[in-house]
Amino acid sequence: MKVIEKVSEMQNWSERERCAGKRIVLVPTMGFLHEGHLSLVREGRKRGDLLVVSLFVNPKQFAPGEDYKNYPRDLERDRKLLERESADVLLRPSVEEVYPEGHQTHVEVERLDQFLCGAFRPGHFRGVVTMVAKLFNIVRPHVAIFGLKDYQQFQMIRRMTADLNFDIEVVGHPIVRETDGLAMSSRNTYLNEPERGAALCLYRSLRKAESLVRRGERQGKPILDAVRQEIGKISLARIEYVHLCHPSSLEEVEKIDDEALLALAVWIGKARLIDNTIFKA
Amino acid sequence: MKVIEKVSEMQNWSERERCAGKRIVLVPTMGFLHEGHLSLVREGRKRGDLLVVSLFVNPKQFAPGEDYKNYPRDLERDRKLLERESADVLLRPSVEEVYPEGHQTHVEVERLDQFLCGAFRPGHFRGVVTMVAKLFNIVRPHVAIFGLKDYQQFQMIRRMTADLNFDIEVVGHPIVRETDGLAMSSRNTYLNEPERGAALCLYRSLRKAESLVRRGERQGKPILDAVRQEIGKISLARIEYVHLCHPSSLEEVEKIDDEALLALAVWIGKARLIDNTIFKA
Repeated sequence: MKVIEKVSEMQNWSERERCAGKRIVLVPTMGFLHEGHLSLVREGRKRGDLLVVSLFVNPKQFAPGEDYKNYPRDLERDRKLLERESADVLLRPSVEEVYPEGHQTHVEVERLDQFLCGAFRPGHFRGVVTMVAKLFNIVRPHVAIFGLKDYQQFQMIRRMTADLNFDIEVVGHPIVRETDGLAMSSRNTYLNEPERGAALCLYRSLRKAESLVRRGERQGKPILDAVRQEIGKISLARIEYVHLCHPSSLEEVEKIDDEALLALAVWIGKARLIDNTIFKA
Repeated sequence: MKVIEKVSEMQNWSERERCAGKRIVLVPTMGFLHEGHLSLVREGRKRGDLLVVSLFVNPKQFAPGEDYKNYPRDLERDRKLLERESADVLLRPSVEEVYPEGHQTHVEVERLDQFLCGAFRPGHFRGVVTMVAKLFNIVRPHVAIFGLKDYQQFQMIRRMTADLNFDIEVVGHPIVRETDGLAMSSRNTYLNEPERGAALCLYRSLRKAESLVRRGERQGKPILDAVRQEIGKISLARIEYVHLCHPSSLEEVEKIDDEALLALAVWIGKARLIDNTIFKA
């Protein structure tokens, strides 16, 4: 596995490989890899000839007061895991390489940013989408793969890719869960033992909603009430939002017509956890 | 000369030519070509193997109430002129091809947008820079050429290109003037005969400032006063701004230390004209 730290080296590598007819797949990550990331990597292996995994904790997607400094990092472990998955390139640029002095450009997806996490983390998606646009120009992949736990992020990146005419296929990959149902996240390391138990309420509440829908419920209110009630049982949990919305516009819906996304963000201690599920009526 | 209307056709053409080792040059225009554009086209011919000229009147860079509808257009004439200059591709997508339903992403260069025209045309540069980022992904050139009459635009595009890691060389090309000194612009067609005469005050005022600097003046105030006074003699002229600033940050300077940009925007009738010059101390 090649480790690349410089933008120009990555661009030269990609231009060469593209012109040699190779199909390049990018899996962008912030590192501290877990099974969720590795499932993206394995999906990536299947979708092209060459696999690039980027590892960069992007300061611009953390608001002041958020956990940029404490975000977990373990480069050596990540490197070994990616070696084992036979990634072709690990791209790990420094902050100075990505944001040199004078950087002042951002990319913004206007409407999709107003909902869900966008409403609670001002500037977050602007930081994400700008970074992904940069990575697209640095790596020039044919395909890029993102996890569907960050569902809004996936939709915004897909929108940005189309709107800025990047000739890249954006693929969403299903949520990977621990055996007890907790969606995998690097931030799960913030949880102590009682919190780790409490965190299961996210998954339980989604299963509850799914069972209501399976039994024929189509109205949003009883579904949302059931989710809130389930999470409300857990004293360590504090709901940030629970939303039922259209899966591509993310606009709130009052009932499930065709497809709908149920998405939630819940604080457990100092960990902000998100999860979601899609209903097909 | 190939005429291309579809984004995907342009992208496929470029990928093929890049991989055949060809160096692609892009000259983006809004059409209604004059000698200023044609000098960019000729510069472009020298800088690569294949020359793409885009022609698109970009609605997103006109604010409500500006001249989008009346902006001059003459596709047949433009096509013939480019044929004569042996451009390889004329890219002329429709508005629907460029901004399909649901488009909602923009690119913004934050600090450079606060000065000069940016301060008077809210949203203008956001529209320009977003469109250029799109064109960069549609055409995938090695080099792109812009006229220096739109000096702020040039600096913002250069900044955006670096900040988003486009692997593209952005070249600025000197202002082309009519024999009497008026900077060429598609908007000069808005001028009637007395206005056409009045419009010369922009050039005269810049020459006046240049002669002051040649005679040793380094303070901004007397230079700006002389420019305002010269334009003030013309009753048909209304100054929007006259600024002396650093040529890359565009921040105002009080005196000329090393290099400085003198830039101005003046209304003559319903034509908003801009012009500039750079002093080297």
